[in-house]
Order: sequence, then C-alpha cells, then structure tokens
Amino acid sequence: MDISFILLEFFIILIAAKIGGELAERIGQPAVLGELVAGVMVGGSMLGLVKQNEIIDILAQIGVIILLFEVGVSSDFEAFMKAGIPAFVVACVGVALPFAGGYFLAHFLGLKVIEAVFLGATLTATSVGITVRVFHDLGQSKRKEANIVIGAAVIDDVLGLIVLAVVIGLITTGSVSFYNIFKVTSLAVLFLFGSLALSSVAAPYIFRIVHQMRVRGILFVFAFSFCLLLSYLAKVVGLAPIVGAFAAGLILSRTEHKEHVEERIKPVADLFVPIFFIMMGVAVDIKTLNPFILSNQQNIIVAMNLLAVAIIGKYLAGFSIPWMKVNRSVIGVGMIPRGEVGLIFASYGITHKLIGSGLYTSVLIMIMMTTFITPPILKAVFKIEDKYHGPKQA
Amino acid sequence: MDISFILLEFFIILIAAKIGGELAERIGQPAVLGELVAGVMVGGSMLGLVKQNEIIDILAQIGVIILLFEVGVSSDFEAFMKAGIPAFVVACVGVALPFAGGYFLAHFLGLKVIEAVFLGATLTATSVGITVRVFHDLGQSKRKEANIVIGAAVIDDVLGLIVLAVVIGLITTGSVSFYNIFKVTSLAVLFLFGSLALSSVAAPYIFRIVHQMRVRGILFVFAFSFCLLLSYLAKVVGLAPIVGAFAAGLILSRTEHKEHVEERIKPVADLFVPIFFIMMGVAVDIKTLNPFILSNQQNIIVAMNLLAVAIIGKYLAGFSIPWMKVNRSVIGVGMIPRGEVGLIFASYGITHKLIGSGLYTSVLIMIMMTTFITPPILKAVFKIEDKYHGPKQA
Repeated sequence: MDISFILLEFFIILIAAKIGGELAERIGQPAVLGELVAGVMVGGSMLGLVKQNEIIDILAQIGVIILLFEVGVSSDFEAFMKAGIPAFVVACVGVALPFAGGYFLAHFLGLKVIEAVFLGATLTATSVGITVRVFHDLGQSKRKEANIVIGAAVIDDVLGLIVLAVVIGLITTGSVSFYNIFKVTSLAVLFLFGSLALSSVAAPYIFRIVHQMRVRGILFVFAFSFCLLLSYLAKVVGLAPIVGAFAAGLILSRTEHKEHVEERIKPVADLFVPIFFIMMGVAVDIKTLNPFILSNQQNIIVAMNLLAVAIIGKYLAGFSIPWMKVNRSVIGVGMIPRGEVGLIFASYGITHKLIGSGLYTSVLIMIMMTTFITPPILKAVFKIEDKYHGPKQA
Repeated sequence: MDISFILLEFFIILIAAKIGGELAERIGQPAVLGELVAGVMVGGSMLGLVKQNEIIDILAQIGVIILLFEVGVSSDFEAFMKAGIPAFVVACVGVALPFAGGYFLAHFLGLKVIEAVFLGATLTATSVGITVRVFHDLGQSKRKEANIVIGAAVIDDVLGLIVLAVVIGLITTGSVSFYNIFKVTSLAVLFLFGSLALSSVAAPYIFRIVHQMRVRGILFVFAFSFCLLLSYLAKVVGLAPIVGAFAAGLILSRTEHKEHVEERIKPVADLFVPIFFIMMGVAVDIKTLNPFILSNQQNIIVAMNLLAVAIIGKYLAGFSIPWMKVNRSVIGVGMIPRGEVGLIFASYGITHKLIGSGLYTSVLIMIMMTTFITPPILKAVFKIEDKYHGPKQA
C-alpha cells in the first residue's frame, strides 16, 4: 500500500466530513449525520473516491477509540457510577425485548428455531459510537441520560458476549455450556472492575514516576498509552476496544490531569474521529436499498420488520426505569444504533451457513438504518424536550 | 490485521519511546537518540516486541509528516526564504562531494564505472527528519542554521531526483535523457514554487469560506487537510511527502492562524512522531553489525569507508558559504543523515542486480550509522559552541 494513496484518502475523508458536517448543522441536524451521508457519497457505491481498505479501517477504529476516550475523560466518574443500576436495567430490558421480538418475527416468517435464535441475537447489542457523537455534537454529553446510555451500552457488550456464547454453543454442540458462559462473562466483568480497581490503586505510583520524567509530552503520551492498553485488553477479553478506551478515560477523569488530557485529546479527535463515521458511510452499499430491483424487495421488507423490532425493543427499554427522573425517550432512542456485535453475529451466521445471503443483507440494512435514523430522531427528541420543558442540562 | 495487534504495538512504541527519550535526556543526549535505541531494543533483532508491518509503517510515515508540518508551522517564512541561496549552495556542494567521494571510493575498491556512479548516488541526499528532531529536542529550531539545513534538504531532494533520473537513464539506455531530467526537475520545482504561489493567492479566499463554517474543529482540520494534500502532491511529483508537509506548514506560518495550528498539532505530534523514530530503530538488523561473524566483516569495512565519505562530504558542505555568519559545523553535521533516497537507490540497485547483497548491506549500515551518530555529534557541536561563544540563538 502506497503512502500517497493513504494521504489522498485521508484528505478526502476530512474534507468530506467537514462539508457534510457543516451542511447537516445548517439544516439543524447533528454533524455526524452529515458525515455518514458524506461517507455514502464518497464511497464505492457512489463517487468511489474512498475505498474500504485495511489501513483506513484501522485508522477508523483508532478514531472511534479516541472518541470514547475523549468522552470518558470528560465524564464525571461519580455520576457515571451512580447510573450503574438504571444502566443495568436498561441494558437487560434492551437486550431481552429485541431478542424476543427478533425470535418471534423469525417464527412468523417461518424460519427454523436456530435461525430465530440467531436473528434475535443480531438485534441485541447497542453500538454506542453514534449516540455518543450525537450527544457530543448537540452539547448534551453531561446529561444523566448520556451516562445511562453509555453504561447500558457497556453492559450490553458483556450481555452480547453471553448471548454469543449461548448461540454458538447451541449451534456447534446443540447445548449450552455454562462453564463457557461463566468464563467469558467473568473475564469481561473482571476486566471492567479489575481495570477500575487496579488503576485506582496503581495510579498514584505511576503518576509519581511520570511526574519525575521531563521528556516532551510525557503526561499526555502516558495517558494515551493507557487508553491503548485498556482498549487492547478489552478486545482480548472479548469486549469492544471502545469499552476499554472509555474505561481508560473514565479512570483519568478522576485524576488531577483530567483537564490537561481533555485539552490535548481534542485536536487528535478532530483529525481521527471523522474517519470512523465517514467509513461507516463508505461501508454502505446503496444498491442493496434500491426497491426497484426485484431481488432487493424481499430483503428490504424483512429489513424493515427487523428495524421496527430493533427500534421498538430499545425504545421501550428507555421506559424500564420508572423511578428515575430522566427523559426516557432520550435513553430509548440513544440505545437504538446497532453495530459491531450485530455484524459479528451476521458474519458468523453467513460463514456457518445458518442464514442465507438474503437474510444477511437484511441484517446489514437494519444495522445501517439504525445508525442513520438515530441522529435525526435524537435531535427531534431534544427539540420536543426544549419545547415542552425548556432546555434541560442535568 | 487485527486491531488488537495494532493497539498493542502502538502502546509498546509510545512507552518505549518515552523511556528511551527520558534516559537519553538524563545522560545529556537528544531524546530522539533514545527513541532510536529503544526502537532497536524492542525490534525484531532483540526483544521482538514490535514487528515491521504495513500499518505501523504507514503510521510512522504519517508521524514524520506531522513532524515536518509542525516544524513548518513554527518556522519564520521570511527567514526561511532568506536562507534560500546559502541553502542552495550547501545542497549542491553536499551532493557533489559525497557523490565524487563515493565514485572514487568505488573505483579504489575495484568496482565497475556503473557501480561507482551508483554508489556515489546513494550518498547524495540528506534525510532531514533526524536533524529536525534534534534541533527540536534541543530547542534550536529557530536558528539560522536550521533554516539552511532544512532548505538544503528540500533542494537535496530535488537534486536527488535529478541524480536518480541520470543514473537510471545511464543504466537502462546507456545515455542521459535531458528531456527526462528536465521533466522531473521542472515538475518538482513547479510543485515547490507553485504550491507557495498558489496558496498565497488562494489562502485568503479559502479562509474566508472556512471562517463561515461553524462545525467543530474546522480551522485545524482544514489546516491538516492542507498538509495531507501537499504531502500527497509532493509524492506524486517524485519528492518526499515530508517536503510537502513542510511547505504546507510554512505557508500556514504566514497566516494569522499560525498559533492556533501550532498549539493543536503539538499533541498530535506527541502521539505519532515517536512511531517514526521507533520504527527506524526497529528496522535495524543488529546481526549485520556483529564483527565476529566472518561474512559481516567485509560489509562492515566497506560501510565504514562509505560512512567516512558520507560524513566528510556533508560536513565540508557546511563550509561552502563563507560569507554567512553561521556555525558551519552545525550545518555540516546537520546534513549528515541519509534516508529514503539512499534506500531507494540501494533497493533499485539490488533489484536490478547492479550491486550485490554485500554492497547493499554496506549501504544500509552506512545509512543507519548516519542516523545514529548525528544526534550525539550535533549535541556535542552545540556544547562546544556554548563553551567558546556562549549560547547563541539567532
């Protein structure tokens, strides 16, 4: 791969992101929606200026890691921990309802039990990148709802691991291995609590060493290395790297270096975060959405049904914590986007011949649609809130 | 390529860079020397923690692009332009002397004329990354000598293109195509002057548009995109991408946005620049340097002769501008490091069977040695200057 190719792609990505983001903001939408649409425009199925390739994909993943690290650092640790129980409830309900919905939808479509379980599973896990960006774009990152959504997404990721272990167990051995489920779950939980606990204990000692170092940028480089390490460990235990990045940010948000890191990660995020959202758009193959192509119609209809289940299931999860004084619609809508976990299920399904390419395409369309509809719906929810209750910044 | 692998490599690179840089500073050396040595340590021929791979190599190249962009932005445009004529003289003498030296050395070693021309060519072009980092590490970036060295390195790159065209012409057709030389030279010169002229004219208009945009980070993202574009174009006309990155920075240094960009590129540089220098160390195969392996001895002896020519040729070039009030040793030593252009010649030579693997290894050792010796020698030169003339910051 030639460096000049990457330089040109990077250039086009940044320019497209900023033009798209600007236009979106001009029509009152979050910038991220403009980036997604710009990504579709420059992508292979339209202008063909940006092609998916390994290097840009890695840069995109580094981009979303930086985003979640940034969000973690600017978080309020206490507030986030307080959101633990409601986040847990939202996560469980938000996994159970779409799973059940997907299962019954598949049943209704006449699919086999194993396919039905599988389809239910693809609908479970929230991918929090989009929602976090929308909160960020709209200056709503500090809300109670943001903490609950992020917390629920982290727990979702753990639940997704459990569902994956169950489904793969059912498919490969026909039974559920409780040992296996116990193993993946405890590794993930151990990582989450272990990194928080260990870091709290070790942080003062490490910072004492770092403070004695005088080489340029040491504090910030150290903080970012910590983000890389936790992202790596999260991935190793089976979680998404962004969970580790967020945890790293959250841990640093408790230290006296919060502002130092916050200020320095911003320009880095400015350059790398857009790559992730542009490449999300680039990944969209708009040909699959053309309803005038006969072979697409069936897939699109199934996708719309899946989408309905995906939306309703997560939206209702927002109403599962009646004792909390929050805007339930913000939580419900914030949980809608699906991503990597759904894609992992879908890829697993097609490579193991559990689902056909038609159903696979439908799942891809559903995931893509949840990504694209969330920014405008969330924006609308905030608008309604402003109208009826006045701006709220809890 | 799995993201977790990249995250771990990136983590190790940053930690190794900072430990190496810190230790180097503790013993009074520039941080970059510590990064190079740390790179050798974590590389394949020692600890094996970091392996060369396409993705990290691209990140490394983005790192050095960011470094030269940063240096360009913090430059003084007028001072840089004033250094044009001495830089031109230094560049020409600094290409001619090592070329002649390499030619006669080859002759003395009993090589054929074509090999002698070829060997001379590998010694011509300065690679400015290391020197720039040393100036940076030692807080000497604003000196007149820094401008002359960078300017000479840019001109070197153009001269390198000409030498390459001549040598390849001699080898493939046995004659020199003046049309071809004219083409590559004028393209490169056109790029350099064209980008400066066009940007000066277009900048106010572009900034007027950018100022009307309100999406987050627009100014900085625009500035960095400009760096990516010029790096790309430089590569397209045959120059090193860092020449484009430096030009982009230099152009921006004339605008009112200089400080805004300078401040924001710094944390980005903190994270990405070390990748370049660590990977330079990783690329070193220390086995080739073991003098107790019989087959290495010949290569090492030839390499030491090449190194002597490489050092003396460039060092004397520092004395080619007697009318300037500068520290000639700073310029001469600053021009010593060789890099990409030498590697391009060496790779061309071995793939076209113009040189054997022994001579190829000797060239690699020579390039590597110029990189490693420059930081300590330059540091020593500054120390002598302080001692005899007092600190000088022109």
